[in-house]
Amino acid sequence: MSYDEPRIIEEVNRIAKAIDREIARIEVSNRGSLYRAAFYLPKLGGKRMRPFVVLNSSHLVRGHEEAAFSAALAVELLHNFTLVHDDIMDRDEYRRNHKTTHVVYGEATAILAGDLLFSKAFEEAAKAEELSGARGIVKELALSSEKIAEGQFLDISFERGEKVSLDDYLEMIYLKTAALYETSAVVGGLTAGRYDQDRLRMLSEFGRNLGLAFQIRDDYLGVFGDSAITGKPVGNDILRGKKSAPILLALSKENVDLSPLKRALGNPRSTHDDVVQAIDFLRRLGVDTECRRMADEFARRAVDSLSPFEDSDAKSLLSGLAYYAVARDR
Amino acid sequence: MSYDEPRIIEEVNRIAKAIDREIARIEVSNRGSLYRAAFYLPKLGGKRMRPFVVLNSSHLVRGHEEAAFSAALAVELLHNFTLVHDDIMDRDEYRRNHKTTHVVYGEATAILAGDLLFSKAFEEAAKAEELSGARGIVKELALSSEKIAEGQFLDISFERGEKVSLDDYLEMIYLKTAALYETSAVVGGLTAGRYDQDRLRMLSEFGRNLGLAFQIRDDYLGVFGDSAITGKPVGNDILRGKKSAPILLALSKENVDLSPLKRALGNPRSTHDDVVQAIDFLRRLGVDTECRRMADEFARRAVDSLSPFEDSDAKSLLSGLAYYAVARDR
Repeated sequence: MSYDEPRIIEEVNRIAKAIDREIARIEVSNRGSLYRAAFYLPKLGGKRMRPFVVLNSSHLVRGHEEAAFSAALAVELLHNFTLVHDDIMDRDEYRRNHKTTHVVYGEATAILAGDLLFSKAFEEAAKAEELSGARGIVKELALSSEKIAEGQFLDISFERGEKVSLDDYLEMIYLKTAALYETSAVVGGLTAGRYDQDRLRMLSEFGRNLGLAFQIRDDYLGVFGDSAITGKPVGNDILRGKKSAPILLALSKENVDLSPLKRALGNPRSTHDDVVQAIDFLRRLGVDTECRRMADEFARRAVDSLSPFEDSDAKSLLSGLAYYAVARDR
Repeated sequence: MSYDEPRIIEEVNRIAKAIDREIARIEVSNRGSLYRAAFYLPKLGGKRMRPFVVLNSSHLVRGHEEAAFSAALAVELLHNFTLVHDDIMDRDEYRRNHKTTHVVYGEATAILAGDLLFSKAFEEAAKAEELSGARGIVKELALSSEKIAEGQFLDISFERGEKVSLDDYLEMIYLKTAALYETSAVVGGLTAGRYDQDRLRMLSEFGRNLGLAFQIRDDYLGVFGDSAITGKPVGNDILRGKKSAPILLALSKENVDLSPLKRALGNPRSTHDDVVQAIDFLRRLGVDTECRRMADEFARRAVDSLSPFEDSDAKSLLSGLAYYAVARDR
């Protein structure tokens, strides 16, 4: 897979800056302290991948520019809302190298801060419909947030130690992560104001597969990534006992002595040596290659689903993002 | 103020049953456990006052019947979402004589259950727009949920002991409670599919004043209500130190020795005698009459704002609800 990486990164950064500016503007116009808590996380930045997908999907169908920007903002605010609430549920104290919202503002305020972002997301989605004359953007976003809640619910129940198959896992990451990428592509498509069911289906497939590719690459990096590049401790996900793709691929092997993995898995008192040995063991099992192939396969499907669209800058940016999703090291 | 109370109660019950049926239907169609947690509270019933306002406001402007029902459901789900999250924040263990969602399902699930209800509310709001061809229902609901979050945030900060004026308090209950009544009336009006700004403004005023009347009557009952009828302990709000209308009216008096009140206020170890004496003291101050008059005044304004509409069954039901709001003993 070849793609123009510098171009993708340049475009990702350009869109991220536009979203950052708009987020800064929202906060300034409302000075109450709940707004400060609500926009604390969105203001910490982020790659703004979902807005990238919304805006380029909209370009692909020659959608309404301003409406697409509102839809992109809606999706990004919705994403941030889920992070604020997830961090409370998961008792995570850090995100993006900063303290999480509930650590800074207290839990009650963080719940409300998330709720406020959620409301703002729908306010922007309504604006996108009004600007473009489209229907379906709000509905798509609502259905997506239902899926995200279900996905997080599944994720929590997986952590509680129920037996998890690879299929269960794929269902969970579809709901928790890929559904919002799917929605990003679809709402981008909807900003054209008229429905073309076939093209919307292609965009939906693109987004879903892209989201799965992203998440599985994340999982790969969580075990095999270079901690100097990812910024996370070596074998972070092994220590936390996270049932991510590489772990589930290993656990699904039959007639294999898994003790080198199990010694470190979910055991925070493991030594550095235990962790390094577990990772080596996973490599010997071939799990690293399997996991990479899995992510590549989803990226390929994402790119394929764009084939009915004629060539354009937006199309190569979207394909490029899919390649980037599975090539990145952080 | 005279009104046909049996008729109002009959109509309230009829609408409540229709909403109950629809809520039961939603749950049946989705069997996941997160849905069980999400619909636990909505299924416990309630007076469904806000749907009553949506449906009759829609009748008043000859709005789209089916769209109004979706909008009514949206508002009721949004209301239930706020209750689920508020109970977590306030650490309340009982509501409607049942354990609260987070007590039954755990806090993480309750946060998600609320989020799911929130999403469902917007799904229904989008449906209402699609059915009626209206715009603005989703936006109105989004702005309302922002106000509710801000209102709850203020309420929490009031409890933390900041000095609260009666005006601060009215602002808080507007945001936390009355705004959703306002929205109920407005979205009912929007189901007519076309905008008539004057009539929407009248409906908005009706809903806002109705909501304030409801809340202040609640406050009155929380101090002066007959515990055999309200089902709450005598002087419940005094013991909890809740800064409600009667308490703030008393605290605003100058040159009065407030010690009979302050002995019991926010002091869970007060004796029954202390509480009874505090209530007697408030009556001697005339706070009961002042508080009743305040609620009556908002109800009167609500009724007045309907005067531009020609007489109809819907109009007398809405006026009747305003009278009922301030006459009820529970």
